[in-house]
Amino acid sequence: MDGVNSGRDTVHRNSGDLSEEMTKNLILQSQEAKKRSYCPYSKFRVGAALMTSDNSVITGCNVENASSNLGLCAERTAISKAVSEGHKSFKAIAIASDLCDQFISPCGGCRQFMREFGSDWDVYLTKPDSSYIRMTVAELLPASFGPEDLSKEKVFNILNEY
Amino acid sequence: MDGVNSGRDTVHRNSGDLSEEMTKNLILQSQEAKKRSYCPYSKFRVGAALMTSDNSVITGCNVENASSNLGLCAERTAISKAVSEGHKSFKAIAIASDLCDQFISPCGGCRQFMREFGSDWDVYLTKPDSSYIRMTVAELLPASFGPEDLSKEKVFNILNEY
Amino acid sequence: MDGVNSGRDTVHRNSGDLSEEMTKNLILQSQEAKKRSYCPYSKFRVGAALMTSDNSVITGCNVENASSNLGLCAERTAISKAVSEGHKSFKAIAIASDLCDQFISPCGGCRQFMREFGSDWDVYLTKPDSSYIRMTVAELLPASFGPEDLSKEKVFNILNEY
Amino acid sequence: MDGVNSGRDTVHRNSGDLSEEMTKNLILQSQEAKKRSYCPYSKFRVGAALMTSDNSVITGCNVENASSNLGLCAERTAISKAVSEGHKSFKAIAIASDLCDQFISPCGGCRQFMREFGSDWDVYLTKPDSSYIRMTVAELLPASFGPEDLSKEKVFNILNEY
Ligand SMILES: [Zn+2]
Ligand SMILES: [Zn+2]
Ligand SMILES: [Zn+2]
Ligand SMILES: [Zn+2]
Repeated sequence: MDGVNSGRDTVHRNSGDLSEEMTKNLILQSQEAKKRSYCPYSKFRVGAALMTSDNSVITGCNVENASSNLGLCAERTAISKAVSEGHKSFKAIAIASDLCDQFISPCGGCRQFMREFGSDWDVYLTKPDSSYIRMTVAELLPASFGPEDLSKEKVFNILNEY
Repeated sequence: MDGVNSGRDTVHRNSGDLSEEMTKNLILQSQEAKKRSYCPYSKFRVGAALMTSDNSVITGCNVENASSNLGLCAERTAISKAVSEGHKSFKAIAIASDLCDQFISPCGGCRQFMREFGSDWDVYLTKPDSSYIRMTVAELLPASFGPEDLSKEKVFNILNEY
Repeated sequence: MDGVNSGRDTVHRNSGDLSEEMTKNLILQSQEAKKRSYCPYSKFRVGAALMTSDNSVITGCNVENASSNLGLCAERTAISKAVSEGHKSFKAIAIASDLCDQFISPCGGCRQFMREFGSDWDVYLTKPDSSYIRMTVAELLPASFGPEDLSKEKVFNILNEY
Repeated sequence: MDGVNSGRDTVHRNSGDLSEEMTKNLILQSQEAKKRSYCPYSKFRVGAALMTSDNSVITGCNVENASSNLGLCAERTAISKAVSEGHKSFKAIAIASDLCDQFISPCGGCRQFMREFGSDWDVYLTKPDSSYIRMTVAELLPASFGPEDLSKEKVFNILNEY
């Protein structure tokens, strides 16, 4: 965790890092995306803005359902949208909500959905005033498993036991 | 259910119906969307093409996950994408898979996700040769509930009992 | 659909049918299960009682989550519980809620979860006064797909094309 | 993270900790539960054994679905089962799979489902030889949100802005 940033510079961790301007813009776009939120049940609006490896920005919002567990979070909407447009490599995702006193954090389901596309990219947990905390997917989902853990060889090894 | 159509005309049910050309095009776009499928686990590619009330077409594909139940169907990807772009009123959705001997049908989860945005719109269950069955959301999910069943009044009535 | 039953006899459809007393008891148990509901967000309590082929009754309730789409319906709780206790063959499931003016109906996700274990078993949509509508899984999820549609042969046929 | 334990003692962290014998037994029960797994699609069996605050043990297994994202993990099956039996306070959960070279770890969705019922309880990630890693829910889901973050006051504060 990079600690709270309220407009001040953050220490840039690696070459994949976004410039301050790109970060600001990504957060702004997550706030814009929030306005599309379909949340008649919770009234809890969430937006997300995803930056792909080629610097495209793809946005999503939460889409609730009368059967609550069939709804979708903003982050998963943005990522599935990106995949459907041919992107599978991501630099960062910013998440926005209306909670003023709390950095909005991704749920465990979204962390796993992010992790499918790598562990070493950034998640910006933000407040409406655009301050943020930056964490990697790996920091948000330690001791995780992903595609490489379900490779054919491993599955075959299990199947051969039966 | 309209019965199987294999290139022959279908009886058009109401004014919201798509022309034969629009239908063909929608199915074609669902087949194109299928190519974006991220399905390393099942190898089962699915695409969807959604037509909004203003005749925009928005496509989606399935996006699987190492934790299988956190994956997403093509239909939900397309619909959440549409909502995130400001659309909430839909005319039709076409679904495409690689199954040659079967019209690909939406799962129950996707039917409920569709139904959130109305019961009276069309779902095209297709085969790779572009033949199709057309059913409404209401036909696919009879005796369903949706947003209107969870209106504030009804919820308040329940809450007042406690 | 059998039509509404408000205490009067229903026409029994097949030999798998429950006696009137068993039906009453199953509905009663779904109402008892409702009391276990964990629903701090919606306050919408749901209970389910599942009868297995050997006449065991297994109950479930909805279990909500702060990340709403990670919650679970009562029906899926009951069925997964049954599977974890060695049951995979079911006769009927009764669903109970607090909605007085509506027969509580399963969501699309639960219909698909039921359908995994066959199409020809009964779902009792009930009201708090124990009146009910009885529908089969097949009636609730027409044109469905299930395990037999994803058999190895079919999947191999697809894979061989690549 | 407590580090790998392969039969040797672990340092007990707090009074809620399980004795070595209880731990062994919990892991054993998760392995037994694995045998109930319904996983015709992935062949990837998972079992879970959950210890409640009153030392009851409740088990679950994964229950897959032809529509893969409607399946359920073993951990969620065990927890929803426990809730349906009146338990909401947990000490520990053990998870078992057939992967010999890897400690089976909960997916993000299950971590969030666990976290609903507190952050300060233990998860045992195990191997078939009963060796394990022990982590808390908080360690597995850092910077998480739960029921207390969606309290009525906070929601009302948001709603008042509209
Ligand atoms: Zn989420
Ligand atoms: Zn689906
Ligand atoms: Zn349901
Ligand atoms: Zn899981």
